[in-house]
Amino acid sequence: MTNFVGVIRVLTLDDPEMVATHGRQIERKYGLATRSRCIPDQRRGIYDAESERLAIPKIVPLAKQLAEEGAAAIVVSCAADPGVPELRRELRIPVIGGGSAVAHLALSLAERVGVLELTETADPFVQQLLGGKLVGVGIPEGVKDTTDLMTDWGREAALKAAGRLVESGAGALVLACTGYSTIGLAPELRRRFGVVAVDPVDAEGLVVWYAVGGGTAVG
Amino acid sequence: MTNFVGVIRVLTLDDPEMVATHGRQIERKYGLATRSRCIPDQRRGIYDAESERLAIPKIVPLAKQLAEEGAAAIVVSCAADPGVPELRRELRIPVIGGGSAVAHLALSLAERVGVLELTETADPFVQQLLGGKLVGVGIPEGVKDTTDLMTDWGREAALKAAGRLVESGAGALVLACTGYSTIGLAPELRRRFGVVAVDPVDAEGLVVWYAVGGGTAVG
Repeated sequence: MTNFVGVIRVLTLDDPEMVATHGRQIERKYGLATRSRCIPDQRRGIYDAESERLAIPKIVPLAKQLAEEGAAAIVVSCAADPGVPELRRELRIPVIGGGSAVAHLALSLAERVGVLELTETADPFVQQLLGGKLVGVGIPEGVKDTTDLMTDWGREAALKAAGRLVESGAGALVLACTGYSTIGLAPELRRRFGVVAVDPVDAEGLVVWYAVGGGTAVG
Repeated sequence: MTNFVGVIRVLTLDDPEMVATHGRQIERKYGLATRSRCIPDQRRGIYDAESERLAIPKIVPLAKQLAEEGAAAIVVSCAADPGVPELRRELRIPVIGGGSAVAHLALSLAERVGVLELTETADPFVQQLLGGKLVGVGIPEGVKDTTDLMTDWGREAALKAAGRLVESGAGALVLACTGYSTIGLAPELRRRFGVVAVDPVDAEGLVVWYAVGGGTAVG
């Protein structure tokens, strides 16, 4: 583990510290070095099929460049896994997507999984991966984007939506938007409802940590 | 993380140190305390549907006892996940199965996954979880049980079978028998073939570490 993990943000941000927030979370929790980049000219990020189609040809060259710079693995930090299949065909290093990481970690934890989305127009990728184990989808009432989540009422709405999923029988919760990572919702859900809530940045960090030899290096 | 993880072995062993080998691997790699127990009267472990049927009513009370003793989570250390759905219905702590942990971790790492089984009569549980992403099943030629794996020829046969899976396009390998953990095959496969090989005990340890707050506690 002499080198770094490349982290791709699918949202155009000007401040390098904002670009690096997911990478910093991975550094803090798993002791990995990261280098973060964001795609150009998508200030609203990926929010539907068309914006995803536009993003993929920007994600692929960014990831290739990070690989050339010496990245040991690439994380595409988005719950829709945009560009991940394409990159896995082209690169010889592990490529991890936020959506598949969070969905599969939840599937390792419970028979019935609830998904907390941000809005009704969320990409169905994570829900599709959960298949017959999906017990329900929760959406915080009144929340339109991630900035709403940072308000007291937005956080309360997210907690209520999560509570309904637990009442429906969810044994684990997927937080299917990295906005939930920003507000640190997972530990609070665990304390309140007694089920594991899987944070997408934590999940992609856990998988990339394993991929670059974490489990082996410690042993 | 003041308490311990309960680890269940589905093979009857007399020596407590042998019972604890999987638990020790989890302790070493993830810094968790473990307490291991094995089921009674199954000296050949689980090797077909009937032996699994017999094991489940022994696994459930062992796990419940570990939970009563204060276990923070339970690991059923077997690639067939015996008793895992039953325990998740009865216990309020996370229950992790070796098979679902190893399959889902591989599915977070690659589009196409190869499985290294021990013999042709292997439980199909892991292969079924991989579904359409399963690229092939490898079986080391001439190997009849885990003791064969500990010989030079058995290890060589396992390496050859893994090589064929990589040639078939596997981007990650699942080691679907904890015998491969015992001989430490995963790091060697990584070095030789450049793909991540997922060790079942490492995988269940990774998931239980997350479940008991590893990702949170460090942050």
